[in-house]
Amino acid sequence: MSITSTVMSAPHVLETGRDVRLYARSHPCPNTSGLAPTYLQANLLILPSKYASDFRLLCARNPVPCPLIAESSAPGKWDSIRSYLPGLDGEAILTDVDMRNDAPKYNVYKDSKLVKFGCSNIMDDWTDDHVAFLIGCSFSFESSLTKAGLPPLHIIMKRNVPMYRTSIPLCPAGVFTGSTFVVSMRPYKASDIPSVRNVTRAFSTTHGEPIAWGWDAVKVLCIEDLDSPQWGDVPITQDGVPLGILSGDDELVPVFWGCGVTPQEAVMRTNLQGVIMAHTPGHMLLLDCKDSEIVA
Amino acid sequence: MSITSTVMSAPHVLETGRDVRLYARSHPCPNTSGLAPTYLQANLLILPSKYASDFRLLCARNPVPCPLIAESSAPGKWDSIRSYLPGLDGEAILTDVDMRNDAPKYNVYKDSKLVKFGCSNIMDDWTDDHVAFLIGCSFSFESSLTKAGLPPLHIIMKRNVPMYRTSIPLCPAGVFTGSTFVVSMRPYKASDIPSVRNVTRAFSTTHGEPIAWGWDAVKVLCIEDLDSPQWGDVPITQDGVPLGILSGDDELVPVFWGCGVTPQEAVMRTNLQGVIMAHTPGHMLLLDCKDSEIVA
Repeated sequence: MSITSTVMSAPHVLETGRDVRLYARSHPCPNTSGLAPTYLQANLLILPSKYASDFRLLCARNPVPCPLIAESSAPGKWDSIRSYLPGLDGEAILTDVDMRNDAPKYNVYKDSKLVKFGCSNIMDDWTDDHVAFLIGCSFSFESSLTKAGLPPLHIIMKRNVPMYRTSIPLCPAGVFTGSTFVVSMRPYKASDIPSVRNVTRAFSTTHGEPIAWGWDAVKVLCIEDLDSPQWGDVPITQDGVPLGILSGDDELVPVFWGCGVTPQEAVMRTNLQGVIMAHTPGHMLLLDCKDSEIVA
Repeated sequence: MSITSTVMSAPHVLETGRDVRLYARSHPCPNTSGLAPTYLQANLLILPSKYASDFRLLCARNPVPCPLIAESSAPGKWDSIRSYLPGLDGEAILTDVDMRNDAPKYNVYKDSKLVKFGCSNIMDDWTDDHVAFLIGCSFSFESSLTKAGLPPLHIIMKRNVPMYRTSIPLCPAGVFTGSTFVVSMRPYKASDIPSVRNVTRAFSTTHGEPIAWGWDAVKVLCIEDLDSPQWGDVPITQDGVPLGILSGDDELVPVFWGCGVTPQEAVMRTNLQGVIMAHTPGHMLLLDCKDSEIVA
């Protein structure tokens, strides 16, 4: 089986969140896992303002897959945000930003159908009525896992994290009904799971501790095939073996976290009218604040 | 089929939350659905302090079934609370209270096993190390439903609301793993569900809008038998027919909300050591603030 990674090389100068934003503004840019370590990364969802109130409620009711960090300071504003993070104002999170251009890749939905995938900016689709929402991303705690001697396998393998649809329902909110959790997956030794839970627990605004783990969890979440993630790369071990062909007797087991792709999935499941935009999964908007600033 | 209600008559003088507390302190008292209308009601969970931090996180990660309103102002404090409700301090929520005695009935768990059911107080079991948590209760929005011309059936029938275990997992938090949502159920006409959702949506600290509705939801939640609730009374229509024997063609369909019995279920599913106490489902602690004070 031949498996190639979707990861391109990033220049070494991208040390800060701002570096990545400015680079992505004018260059093709790889997925952002492992870029500008310790800087927060955010999922983007950009909605017509009539859906903003229901979306805030969706996030409040489902804070693990949809931890709301910030939103546009007013409809139409792509260069300033208001923060929902305690102790950090909008300027501490993000300055010198163009949210229409500073994520490496974007998706565009029209009337809940995907019409553009992986475009480099959304200048033509953004209107004065759009509100951008920033949602926490689990890439933000990967530096802490690495520091604790628990580097995620996809980082070692220079691949994107695998992401899956599940059957776990979101609590509905207004127009947002019938949606389910999306999860990201990082394999670990079963004996490391308590430490993995402990390290990530403090990052409540970037999905926090895992929602499920072990081979049983694959069934509980109704993931059909671990080797066919809906987003990101197929998970492979350091021996080059796809994780999903391992049995329950093997050393590595899958560990699942809430994933900020969930809101995009909610958009697809809901009959929303108009133009909705988002980052392309794995290609996040980098922020100016650091993981140490959000630890609970 | 003979179905009798578990509801006793309550004296008409119980007009305020404080009235109900003082009455329950020294008298047998019925379930609290419909008592002191418009006053907030709270689920109680009382834990050894070593579990308090994980329980706060469980609530933060699962705000729909576990909306945290307040907790003891310090370990061992049964007469004062600190509030988590914006704009309402502990004294606005609850004064002149003995949380060991002012709910109509209590359950006591030892090492996660139920050892006392429906006792009138927990004076003998409370210690200086216990922390009481107050969790929102959906009885709090029933007055608003009634005012909107949508009185819950169990109130009309003078019965307790039916409550069910489901298969929907809670997001784990520390020691609390392997738990699932408990839901309360109120049947409505399918055509009334949009209004029911709208009325209850604003009550985010008392479970907010429903999490699922319709006959399909019974399957999604893995409720085995609608006529065998795990807590509360069997749901019957005004014709005296158990709701569960109706088919999908009938006028009334089940509507499910997150339920504050969820934390008790989480305690039973988790191997916690020591004495844990709670109200008996349906027999809530009445508060001093009103539903209009918590509408978002």
